[in-house]
Amino acid sequence: MPQQTADPVKIAILGCGTVGTQVIRLLTEQAEDMAARVGAPVQISGVYVRDTSVERDPVVPRDLLTSDLAALIASSDIVVELMGGIEPARTAIMDALGAGKAVVTANKALLAQKGAELYEAADAANTDLYFEAAVAGAIPLVRPVRESLAGDRVQRILGIVNGTTNYVLDEMTTKGLPYDEVVAEAQRLGYAEADPTADVEGHDAAAKAAILASLAFHQRVSLDDVFCEGISSVTAADVAAATESGHVIKLLAIAESADDGVTVRVHPALVPLTHPLAGVRGAFNAVFIEAESAGELMFYGQGAGGAPTASAVMGDVVSVARHIAGGGKGPRESNYADLPVLPISAALTRFQLRLNVADRPGVLAAVSAILAGKGISIETVRQSAGAEGTAELVISTHRAPEKDLDQMVSDLRANDAVNAVLSVLRIEGE
Amino acid sequence: MPQQTADPVKIAILGCGTVGTQVIRLLTEQAEDMAARVGAPVQISGVYVRDTSVERDPVVPRDLLTSDLAALIASSDIVVELMGGIEPARTAIMDALGAGKAVVTANKALLAQKGAELYEAADAANTDLYFEAAVAGAIPLVRPVRESLAGDRVQRILGIVNGTTNYVLDEMTTKGLPYDEVVAEAQRLGYAEADPTADVEGHDAAAKAAILASLAFHQRVSLDDVFCEGISSVTAADVAAATESGHVIKLLAIAESADDGVTVRVHPALVPLTHPLAGVRGAFNAVFIEAESAGELMFYGQGAGGAPTASAVMGDVVSVARHIAGGGKGPRESNYADLPVLPISAALTRFQLRLNVADRPGVLAAVSAILAGKGISIETVRQSAGAEGTAELVISTHRAPEKDLDQMVSDLRANDAVNAVLSVLRIEGE
Repeated sequence: MPQQTADPVKIAILGCGTVGTQVIRLLTEQAEDMAARVGAPVQISGVYVRDTSVERDPVVPRDLLTSDLAALIASSDIVVELMGGIEPARTAIMDALGAGKAVVTANKALLAQKGAELYEAADAANTDLYFEAAVAGAIPLVRPVRESLAGDRVQRILGIVNGTTNYVLDEMTTKGLPYDEVVAEAQRLGYAEADPTADVEGHDAAAKAAILASLAFHQRVSLDDVFCEGISSVTAADVAAATESGHVIKLLAIAESADDGVTVRVHPALVPLTHPLAGVRGAFNAVFIEAESAGELMFYGQGAGGAPTASAVMGDVVSVARHIAGGGKGPRESNYADLPVLPISAALTRFQLRLNVADRPGVLAAVSAILAGKGISIETVRQSAGAEGTAELVISTHRAPEKDLDQMVSDLRANDAVNAVLSVLRIEGE
Repeated sequence: MPQQTADPVKIAILGCGTVGTQVIRLLTEQAEDMAARVGAPVQISGVYVRDTSVERDPVVPRDLLTSDLAALIASSDIVVELMGGIEPARTAIMDALGAGKAVVTANKALLAQKGAELYEAADAANTDLYFEAAVAGAIPLVRPVRESLAGDRVQRILGIVNGTTNYVLDEMTTKGLPYDEVVAEAQRLGYAEADPTADVEGHDAAAKAAILASLAFHQRVSLDDVFCEGISSVTAADVAAATESGHVIKLLAIAESADDGVTVRVHPALVPLTHPLAGVRGAFNAVFIEAESAGELMFYGQGAGGAPTASAVMGDVVSVARHIAGGGKGPRESNYADLPVLPISAALTRFQLRLNVADRPGVLAAVSAILAGKGISIETVRQSAGAEGTAELVISTHRAPEKDLDQMVSDLRANDAVNAVLSVLRIEGE
């Protein structure tokens, strides 16, 4: 058992918007799990907000709200900055690092513009600065790039790192609609802001490109280094021409090693339909990496949103809390969950059955009755002609317990209308 | 600057096959980078082989070969086990952990069968046991699952974790060939072993499923807990029926939380064509994860091969070497690379130009001459009718320097055969 009597690790939450509220919810709901993972209890020491009198989500404990930032930082081990923007976030993080506190932040604008200063302050104080949530929301990218690939050489990164523009381009492609119409619809649905400039002109993607390039090439890349061209000039005719040549248009963040340096840029680009990035639809994000030894890698997931961003923040909190509670080693594989491993008979799955049956009236009724008798309901049936006097039935079921499968197959085989059970395959991923 | 005068971190390499040779090559070639990343020099203390007289790849220094395993472990800080199989790998790792050494291993069979014992030994000795290469080759999965998602709850994992079976199913799907024929061809091409049982019957995937489930659900899952069904009974008719219903057949490793436990299984399954796993082609691997807060994530890349596996091993070596050299914190963002950030004009890219031109002889020659004058060569041209008396040209170029682009566009605009430059889009991902 990890140290049950260890001092609690104290967490200051700066900012109480969508992400902050989700982080507070997770820290509260998962307190027991967190303690096991960290090796010490994890405690919210306070939540910094400008105005403590504003009504908050009920998961935010009123008595933890404070507008005294300096006192909150001083009384905490880890500072989680979720305010966004440059100030007061920058000063708060610099103060925290200067006092030797570990910092977790989701603030991409700040890292893209002042990253060098923050990294140096963390180095100087020999403390942790973690920022998984700042690059592509829930997608784990920072650890893979700065740790898993630490013994490899990244050659190129191509990222779809802005969900709004990917949604707009996707709608233009699949529905053949013009840019203005799709943006208006995205605004109506809440996928695009009232002022969509930061997204559609590529500024958000450029900030992420700067952070990604810094990580991948171990180089200080700031927002000013990033060439940036948005999607507002992409026309329906461009999209049609791309489709015709076997491509799809994506807004890409690109960081690439050249002979004598690194280039970092954001612009719309034609991507071949066969490329893994071409299939990234709607508001999803994905980052494709080419490395010397690893070859091609891709990381895919939700790049924004309260809960996904909170997931990334929580992973960082666990990592730095472990460093504080546990000393210098990597994570342990302690067996702290208490879930038995169940036999496959306990799984619920959908099936596709292929049967060769007699081609006569009443056969489908007989087959349906056998499935119904096991409580298995049918979703679709397709029938096609088989060899003389026979038919092939392809039946997809709703979710049913594996434990009933073998008996159902035996019952089917025993029925004289069924010539053969050709195959039973499970259906997954729906 | 990180500690330049620190004691070297000494690495024992056990095994000198394909992966071992690649790791030795990378440790040698990247010695300077490694020292910067770790904060101390990294040194190979020796390479354990059964027979030191066998001819080796020239990157393996002859004087480092030894068959004295105990002495090698005793004189090292990190033991990198790349022998595979259960013994003597298990005893070597247990001895190393018992002596407080950090261990990096790529041995999936050992972890799937004896993982619990190894994890406990590492915990008891408070040392590191890292195994990124054991799950899906180069794809970073262990860090994302046990660190990035440490504050989230994994609900389900669906993995394509065996390249041979994915290649076989892919060929059956795209070429409509029967199983036996595709396996024979895969053997001829070296994609399948002479005895393909471990791959096609799902045993390799089951070992990886056990490791993934252990990580995701913080539970000891061993190979014996995994239900396993291979692909040898999948027929061309099954594949055709799957295609007809909008699915593709994949061999999946599945770990899923149920009401009162966890199920872990490997079997062929129908996956909807719209699912991100459906597009994973050939010998690539991918792992799709559903987590409570993060939502859907996918990790994609090469699951096997000497260089990709070595990349994952090297990332682990850097992580544990940092713990040894640097004390307890996470990685630093030291600015140790010396690559300038170049302007976009230094980038080489392909372009697709859309031009509205006069529909008369000689126009294509004029346009081609303008591109040729900038040293930009044309890959394809498509011409279609425009409004009265005009035509639309869609030109894709070979890679050309960005710096020539603006001038080329100005020259095109100035030419009286060109009515308009409709768009200039870059082509990426080829």
